[in-house]
Amino acid sequence: MKQKSLDLHEKNRGKISIVSKLETKTQEDLSLAYSPGVAYPCLAIKENKEDVYKYTSKGNMIAVVSDGSAVLGLGNIGPLAGLPVMEGKAILFKNFGGVDAIPICLDTQDPDEIINICKAIAPSFGGINLEDISAPRCFYIEETLKRDLDIPVFHDDQHGTAVVVLAALKNSCRLLGREFSDLKVVVNGPGAAGTSIIKLLHHCGIKDIIACDKQGTLYKGRENDTPEKQELAEITNSEQLKGDLKSAMVGRDVFIGVSVANCVTQDMVKSMNKDPIVFAMANPNPEITYDDAKSAGAIIAGTGRSDYPNQINNVLVFPGLFKGVLAAKCKITEEIKILSAEAISSLISDDELTTDYIIPNPLDLRVADTVAKFIIDAKAN
Amino acid sequence: MKQKSLDLHEKNRGKISIVSKLETKTQEDLSLAYSPGVAYPCLAIKENKEDVYKYTSKGNMIAVVSDGSAVLGLGNIGPLAGLPVMEGKAILFKNFGGVDAIPICLDTQDPDEIINICKAIAPSFGGINLEDISAPRCFYIEETLKRDLDIPVFHDDQHGTAVVVLAALKNSCRLLGREFSDLKVVVNGPGAAGTSIIKLLHHCGIKDIIACDKQGTLYKGRENDTPEKQELAEITNSEQLKGDLKSAMVGRDVFIGVSVANCVTQDMVKSMNKDPIVFAMANPNPEITYDDAKSAGAIIAGTGRSDYPNQINNVLVFPGLFKGVLAAKCKITEEIKILSAEAISSLISDDELTTDYIIPNPLDLRVADTVAKFIIDAKAN
Repeated sequence: MKQKSLDLHEKNRGKISIVSKLETKTQEDLSLAYSPGVAYPCLAIKENKEDVYKYTSKGNMIAVVSDGSAVLGLGNIGPLAGLPVMEGKAILFKNFGGVDAIPICLDTQDPDEIINICKAIAPSFGGINLEDISAPRCFYIEETLKRDLDIPVFHDDQHGTAVVVLAALKNSCRLLGREFSDLKVVVNGPGAAGTSIIKLLHHCGIKDIIACDKQGTLYKGRENDTPEKQELAEITNSEQLKGDLKSAMVGRDVFIGVSVANCVTQDMVKSMNKDPIVFAMANPNPEITYDDAKSAGAIIAGTGRSDYPNQINNVLVFPGLFKGVLAAKCKITEEIKILSAEAISSLISDDELTTDYIIPNPLDLRVADTVAKFIIDAKAN
Repeated sequence: MKQKSLDLHEKNRGKISIVSKLETKTQEDLSLAYSPGVAYPCLAIKENKEDVYKYTSKGNMIAVVSDGSAVLGLGNIGPLAGLPVMEGKAILFKNFGGVDAIPICLDTQDPDEIINICKAIAPSFGGINLEDISAPRCFYIEETLKRDLDIPVFHDDQHGTAVVVLAALKNSCRLLGREFSDLKVVVNGPGAAGTSIIKLLHHCGIKDIIACDKQGTLYKGRENDTPEKQELAEITNSEQLKGDLKSAMVGRDVFIGVSVANCVTQDMVKSMNKDPIVFAMANPNPEITYDDAKSAGAIIAGTGRSDYPNQINNVLVFPGLFKGVLAAKCKITEEIKILSAEAISSLISDDELTTDYIIPNPLDLRVADTVAKFIIDAKAN
């Protein structure tokens, strides 16, 4: 795979290119698309700012912004080395959602500078997708931009994963006939994705969630915790359980892992409630493999891997979500995330649902259009 | 033209789009272009920064950066209203030079902020084209970025015009058999373009240049002048002539106008030396029309307009110049500008040269390739 990937990237000199929607072959072409004719759309926008969505590419153009501080599982490799990932993201936006996306890799890791730059470049873009920015910096950056900008802002590492997990969990309950809000959940790894998963599941009615990090379970007043973890402690672990992941998993219905490889044993799965659901999403190697989870008694198992069933993959979310909010010209709220999860869930009918098919395949081209349609229809009402 | 331009922009929702160079139809496609295969080019770049040019689109991708402070002849219309012009520039880069370009319109007009943003976004780009940033701010911004960044930076409004003027003037001398360095030149409008024209002509050996603005001729010690104008006074007007444009034109061989419409009369042309050269480039209406200049005795006349001969148009320069420096991986120096002018001049043979054909047509597709080739060949030696 290594040489094949390097060759593919080198042969094409990267993965994205800009194209002109217009020809410039004649003097008339030039004078309409550029000087002097271009003055008319300029003046129209000067008169009415909303016209920028009518006369320019802004309305379908998003910036994929990263500082390279938390790239895939590679860590803080910086903006240059992160560029191939951001180009990859850009082509997924285009190929799945028809959304134009351009990588903006930043040579700074100062949160306030990142915020100021995003604000400054916003006029060119219809939305901003934050990518591979490490926690807890990512929370402050996203919250500030969401508050201060009038275009949609989305940190995919947080909310993309949360939306797919919600979709997978909703369909699991549909298949198994369980009550969603009654689920007892343990989430291992309260970083960018884990935090958003916990908040979204809580928002959707699950009352019993325990969060776990390297130090063990989160609880109120735990020493040296960041404000973000303290906030999670407020909505989780109502019984104030103190202990490690192993003790936290006992008697749980659902394990959600966004942490590190091989931290869950078969015995830990066996200690969960009967027929547990195990989503082990550490990449490329999960907390526990699909096979081990199943043979330890998991009724449903999912990982981030494409070579096993139930691949929990963000690409099910971000292309359609941005396609939808760009068309509906709205910001990204909890409602939008829930609509996206419902759209993804809806693509599998009751007849099709099985324990090995609770979410669509990442290559399923219906997904992005359906997610966008759910958002557009909801916003039209 | 107004409705036609608005319709064209609206029908296409702007002028640029992003395309994927790779397919993502199969699981293997996904795993090579994105996770997990994309990790290999990331790690290669982390190991060796130069590999970013091998494995990403950076090497052919430039940012067209503007703050919307001096857009066309429309003035300070801001970043949103300037976006159609920047998209126009981007498609000219692509259609003429094969260079990928993306507009970055900035919601700030503070020079130091603009500098910091350009530095911060530089990892994604192979070059930065500054556009429609007002003088004298543009000088400080460009100089600082040229000094501090390792990628080529070019303010087209300054140097693009200067390069075409140099090419046109060189060919005029070739046709008329005059000595270039002996020309007595007057430049009206020492703003972004005028300043660069004066400096480039001076660098190329013309000793007798007079610069003129609304207050009249520039001279050493003139009150209230910006540092940039004081700098021009050092290399111009050696006789310290004080007076208006009318007096400055008496006895000159060449008039170069980058100023305002209709500020030159036929009498002023008649006061110049015999068979003067008149490049009146104010847009859309020149300092004096082609017809009026010719009938007042100009041997060669040029304007910025496409409906008259000798259109002095930046599009002859920037696509090929960037194509060349991106391929040669070099910065943009006086040498690069002179090579570009020589390339443009070279496209018209002695046999083809006439007073109405001293520079190629802006639609001539040979130009960008020739400019790039001159740069690449010079840098290969």
